[in-house]
Amino acid sequence: MRLKLTLSYLGCAYAGWQIQADTPGTGTVQGELERALGSIAGHPVRVHGAGRTDSGVHAEGQVAHADVPDKPVDWRRALNAKLPRDIRVLSAEPVSGDFHARFDAVGKLYAYTLFSGSCPVSPRLEPFVWTTPPLDLASMAAAAGVLTGRHDFASFRNTGTPGSDTVREIWSIRHEAGLAGSFRCPENWPVSTWFFHGNGFLKQMVRNLMGVMVWAGLGRVAPDDVAACLAAKDRQAVPSPTAPARGLTLMRVEYPG
Amino acid sequence: MRLKLTLSYLGCAYAGWQIQADTPGTGTVQGELERALGSIAGHPVRVHGAGRTDSGVHAEGQVAHADVPDKPVDWRRALNAKLPRDIRVLSAEPVSGDFHARFDAVGKLYAYTLFSGSCPVSPRLEPFVWTTPPLDLASMAAAAGVLTGRHDFASFRNTGTPGSDTVREIWSIRHEAGLAGSFRCPENWPVSTWFFHGNGFLKQMVRNLMGVMVWAGLGRVAPDDVAACLAAKDRQAVPSPTAPARGLTLMRVEYPG
Repeated sequence: MRLKLTLSYLGCAYAGWQIQADTPGTGTVQGELERALGSIAGHPVRVHGAGRTDSGVHAEGQVAHADVPDKPVDWRRALNAKLPRDIRVLSAEPVSGDFHARFDAVGKLYAYTLFSGSCPVSPRLEPFVWTTPPLDLASMAAAAGVLTGRHDFASFRNTGTPGSDTVREIWSIRHEAGLAGSFRCPENWPVSTWFFHGNGFLKQMVRNLMGVMVWAGLGRVAPDDVAACLAAKDRQAVPSPTAPARGLTLMRVEYPG
Repeated sequence: MRLKLTLSYLGCAYAGWQIQADTPGTGTVQGELERALGSIAGHPVRVHGAGRTDSGVHAEGQVAHADVPDKPVDWRRALNAKLPRDIRVLSAEPVSGDFHARFDAVGKLYAYTLFSGSCPVSPRLEPFVWTTPPLDLASMAAAAGVLTGRHDFASFRNTGTPGSDTVREIWSIRHEAGLAGSFRCPENWPVSTWFFHGNGFLKQMVRNLMGVMVWAGLGRVAPDDVAACLAAKDRQAVPSPTAPARGLTLMRVEYPG
């Protein structure tokens, strides 16, 4: 039986989604899931995720699939009992045997949260935000406008990644006050979230886009510079840094229908 | 110069407040503070906390004092730059040289947060709640009524603690929907917080009080049993467990004036 798992996790304690060859079974979200599934199934179970989140990146709606034995088990409850408390299975549904979490995905929604003001005062906020000076929102929106659409994003993937297809389509880049997800912080805190919705994202692409948008908000690059960055198709041509992993959350993976 | 520090921290990663003789400087909140203060002062600095929170217990308003050199330093900013991100200095004010964080404290406010329903779905909530079945609020309030006031709380401190003065006064035990502190979760989540306000609390006392109140909410002890527990002055006479550390937050320490 194939299971479609929808997952929420905190990235802080993990070396990212993908299992590490040298330390299988520990330190990654995939490894923790495979260990929990294997102990219920009674044999090793491979997990396929929709995408590989980096170390420190959180998820509110990561999707994965796995083939498990036909047992009268409440998989969601059984997995949550075995998983560390910073990984939660939101749903575990039986799906068709040809469902593939990665290859069938047609869209993804990421959220990036900024604290744009003086030093944040709550440690509860720290694992979820990038702290920046105050930012000019209109310049950030102008940069977002340049980045939205179908482009070759070679300049915004991390250096050294193989793969030649670097064209992706971003449907929207949207700004909202507050945190991503279910929690709310006080309205007078300078916290806001940028939502990136598109058909797919290259490795570290959202963090690199957020980096150039924050540089725009600081007046260090103009919207025209952002267009030049895109046109260069070269990460070295982009003057802004990769935004820290901790501000990023994978909100949702979308499938046809 | 004596500094009064007001601190917020997440307890998850620490072996509690108090420095451990075998591993000074790491693994405790006091140790992290002493390391940060020492590196700014240029010599070892001792920190005195208002109380010793257990491993896993959080603080929104712990208070400590320390003697530091008279330097033109913004101590709050400098400390936050050196401390791990799960410990934040909310304020650092010069105080009179005879101020003592522990001996001068006249009141404390603790909060204990419960998730009383089916398995929580957000890993962001997990480090801050005790998950229980649905609870009868009227029975809990009745138990809280028995516990409020000036009592010998010997039955509600952890076993093996020395010290003979076990009389404390609880001014109020109050119930509110939602989380403790600045963050809000969705109103339809079964999350609520009990606030314990009193002149002082024995080691693990709030967690032991919460334990017996939850047992009352589950119908496992009656309010009369709670009175008998108090009267026994013996931890072994209390049938309920110590509530987990993770639900507890030290909200505030109070001083005269």
